[in-house]
Amino acid sequence: MTAPLIDLNADLGEGFGRWRLTDDDALLDSVTSANVACGFHAGDAPTMRRVCERAVERGVTIGAQVSYLDLAGFGRRPMDVPRDELAAEVAYQVGALDVFARAAGGAVAYVKPHGALYNRVVRDAEQAAAVIEGVQVASRASGVALAVLCLPGSALLSEADAAGVPSFTEAFADRAYQADGSLQPRSESGSVLHEPDAVVARSVAIARHEPITDAGGAPLLVSARSLCVHGDTPGAAALAARVRAALERDGVQLRAFAGGGA
Amino acid sequence: MTAPLIDLNADLGEGFGRWRLTDDDALLDSVTSANVACGFHAGDAPTMRRVCERAVERGVTIGAQVSYLDLAGFGRRPMDVPRDELAAEVAYQVGALDVFARAAGGAVAYVKPHGALYNRVVRDAEQAAAVIEGVQVASRASGVALAVLCLPGSALLSEADAAGVPSFTEAFADRAYQADGSLQPRSESGSVLHEPDAVVARSVAIARHEPITDAGGAPLLVSARSLCVHGDTPGAAALAARVRAALERDGVQLRAFAGGGA
Amino acid sequence: MTAPLIDLNADLGEGFGRWRLTDDDALLDSVTSANVACGFHAGDAPTMRRVCERAVERGVTIGAQVSYLDLAGFGRRPMDVPRDELAAEVAYQVGALDVFARAAGGAVAYVKPHGALYNRVVRDAEQAAAVIEGVQVASRASGVALAVLCLPGSALLSEADAAGVPSFTEAFADRAYQADGSLQPRSESGSVLHEPDAVVARSVAIARHEPITDAGGAPLLVSARSLCVHGDTPGAAALAARVRAALERDGVQLRAFAGGGA
Amino acid sequence: MTAPLIDLNADLGEGFGRWRLTDDDALLDSVTSANVACGFHAGDAPTMRRVCERAVERGVTIGAQVSYLDLAGFGRRPMDVPRDELAAEVAYQVGALDVFARAAGGAVAYVKPHGALYNRVVRDAEQAAAVIEGVQVASRASGVALAVLCLPGSALLSEADAAGVPSFTEAFADRAYQADGSLQPRSESGSVLHEPDAVVARSVAIARHEPITDAGGAPLLVSARSLCVHGDTPGAAALAARVRAALERDGVQLRAFAGGGA
Repeated sequence: MTAPLIDLNADLGEGFGRWRLTDDDALLDSVTSANVACGFHAGDAPTMRRVCERAVERGVTIGAQVSYLDLAGFGRRPMDVPRDELAAEVAYQVGALDVFARAAGGAVAYVKPHGALYNRVVRDAEQAAAVIEGVQVASRASGVALAVLCLPGSALLSEADAAGVPSFTEAFADRAYQADGSLQPRSESGSVLHEPDAVVARSVAIARHEPITDAGGAPLLVSARSLCVHGDTPGAAALAARVRAALERDGVQLRAFAGGGA
Repeated sequence: MTAPLIDLNADLGEGFGRWRLTDDDALLDSVTSANVACGFHAGDAPTMRRVCERAVERGVTIGAQVSYLDLAGFGRRPMDVPRDELAAEVAYQVGALDVFARAAGGAVAYVKPHGALYNRVVRDAEQAAAVIEGVQVASRASGVALAVLCLPGSALLSEADAAGVPSFTEAFADRAYQADGSLQPRSESGSVLHEPDAVVARSVAIARHEPITDAGGAPLLVSARSLCVHGDTPGAAALAARVRAALERDGVQLRAFAGGGA
Repeated sequence: MTAPLIDLNADLGEGFGRWRLTDDDALLDSVTSANVACGFHAGDAPTMRRVCERAVERGVTIGAQVSYLDLAGFGRRPMDVPRDELAAEVAYQVGALDVFARAAGGAVAYVKPHGALYNRVVRDAEQAAAVIEGVQVASRASGVALAVLCLPGSALLSEADAAGVPSFTEAFADRAYQADGSLQPRSESGSVLHEPDAVVARSVAIARHEPITDAGGAPLLVSARSLCVHGDTPGAAALAARVRAALERDGVQLRAFAGGGA
Repeated sequence: MTAPLIDLNADLGEGFGRWRLTDDDALLDSVTSANVACGFHAGDAPTMRRVCERAVERGVTIGAQVSYLDLAGFGRRPMDVPRDELAAEVAYQVGALDVFARAAGGAVAYVKPHGALYNRVVRDAEQAAAVIEGVQVASRASGVALAVLCLPGSALLSEADAAGVPSFTEAFADRAYQADGSLQPRSESGSVLHEPDAVVARSVAIARHEPITDAGGAPLLVSARSLCVHGDTPGAAALAARVRAALERDGVQLRAFAGGGA
């Protein structure tokens, strides 16, 4: 019998110029996939370069964390962007990151939308199609069939499937799930798990294909190839380390879903 | 006896969002090398994509026109940028453009600094070294030995030579030259030739390795592998077309210096 | 019997750095109110200063044309911005423009949202309230009861009324109207009048409180204190001049709705 | 005999969007003058609003911390900006901040250049003149004779004097001074005092017009109307509180140099 397999992803490189947000070095010790900010919501060029170099050194797979062009709103402002503009902006960001990934000996292996764009492509088929078009442009350019990392049941997943773009789904170890498998909105109380032990236990359960408890107290099976741990909160790196240690202790194999890394 | 050989380059894609500056389609009919703006002084993602697609269709070689990060000043504000930041910013821009060049079936083949950065690396060895470092990062990433296009006698040329980066020099058909072969400063009267016939004649002379007349009236031999025609003035595309026609009529072979295009 | 009274407004200062869009000097010869871009979708600081100086010289009333923070999309990307952020961004823009208006001897007299924000506050009460809050912050700061210029029936108008903020409505001389008085969507054919004579005739009719012909051919009375003429198209300034001349010829009095100008 | 008098200033509001840098609330408990970032190197609109409201509540005088337009470099990239552009950009920033200061019941009372601009106007008379022109534009607009806060012996001071703009000088309690009264360059070891006790003692000495010890060990009299405490380092707010407490204990009167505040 084979060991259960999971990827651990986090957002990295989310500073800009003088500002820092994520403890990139510490997170790279735990994750198998790094979603690296590409300059549109965060992520200046020297930070992108440094994160890529260290990710390659440690065998962490590199993904492009693409966003709306919105530094002031940190990419959290939902935005209507015409399809051709959004597709080109996605490809632009992937290309800008890939130069650092490749110079370091790696390559961007997947794309994960950030913030408002991530949430938008859960339901908005047009923007999802624009993201997929951008991914395809970047794939043609790099010769790598870039994957997308997204929410189960999302429009982005459907568009990826329709276009023949590889896709993988992720779960959130620190979020409450509703009975239908969707995330409980952040506006509702209890939507975020703050207790580290609970986050660790839930991570192990998801990785081992065991049911978790949904917001109503019923068992729920959450299926995902990757677990997202948050990188931009105090204690984020320590929690990621605990999650990784627990997964390893419980016989879960940690492996990136894309790129042949780790 | 072989025909004299010259490249014709111009700045393209220098709009941003709603704003347009260069008549990209018309210029692509004349030039053999297109210096495409990469978003730091001009050049939004959809424009970059479109220009790359059309350049590849017409066999025009694509170069990255890299700049300081300065939309408000159109990259014309001289700036001190720490070496590691400038190197990364150069590589970022090349990578962002290369995604569109490659998706269209081509590849970025060279780098030309824009505006204040272009002028700065004529004398500033540190910034020149930073640009070359950025070019090397992008070359490692793309597997192509990117060339730089620069002024004869510039620090950028020396740094390129020292680093083993291919370099090519350019001349300006619409600028007055001083006796030592340097450009007459724009602040002096007569520094820019406005008469199309004079520009055309000078273009042909430079391409045929014949002397031009310097600002003092003496003959001067200007040696360059490429001729720069300006793209952002009214009538620019028409003048480029006249220059090209005259070169072809006078037996000059038009060929890009890099990339194997045209 | 008093002469009918109308204001003529246009968007000005919509360049950025190297780029120009509107013929500000020519438009200032025709309009009574100038909607000046404030740097968020267009409008650099030196342009704002120059437009304000010339507007004051000619007795043209100055309004702040406020926008989402979106240079790449020219403020045309609809965006969700949290209320406190949008309110502060509106006030920021008004304050930045007012410094130039006042230094020139005038003062910002009103606020007109631009592009996607203009369209959004037609129906979105929350963003409309945010804009009004920003206007109130700027009014408290300047000691002037700033007005808003908006579409008849808009949420912005309701929010202005509820908050006691003076409001004025505008009509579009070059747009087709539907039977209910709303604008025909731009996506439908015939929504924009391209024939100058038709635009001029419609301008005069609206100013004289005479019915125009709606998209279905029926008479429609459009009531507005201001007429908007577009400034960013070729021939815009010439059309504005024709509209002004026709209004004056037909006995319409041109007067700004706010600020005591003209 | 009157008590010695000093102002305590610090940089505030130096976050942007998602990023925070300065502990604004804590600093406002200690300083008498707040140099508030205006959006060009840091400082988003809602932060500017909040800092102004709290500064007015606590009687802290508000200054505009103006910068080159450079978010990526945090305003630390020295830049050549044409005089008319720099003057307008300075006025723009002051106006944008003043709207929040006035809406809160206060007013911007002075201008302090930030980062690379601060250093540049120590010696560059042209940029210093541009800053003064911007200050004069903003003064005409606001009806307040805005002061500038600068280094003793700086070109900005001379230009302010020549233009009749009020000026005040500041000293740095945590920096080593050379025998001629200038700051020891940061590139030299020992240029920054890290020991809180030393910073506190030096603050008190400067405020009481007592000599400090220069880098060579000789006594040096530093004369300044304001003391700058850094706001962007860990422990900055605690150190500022200690400095204030020591000044009060030793009979120094804390009072802003401008604005009639505190």
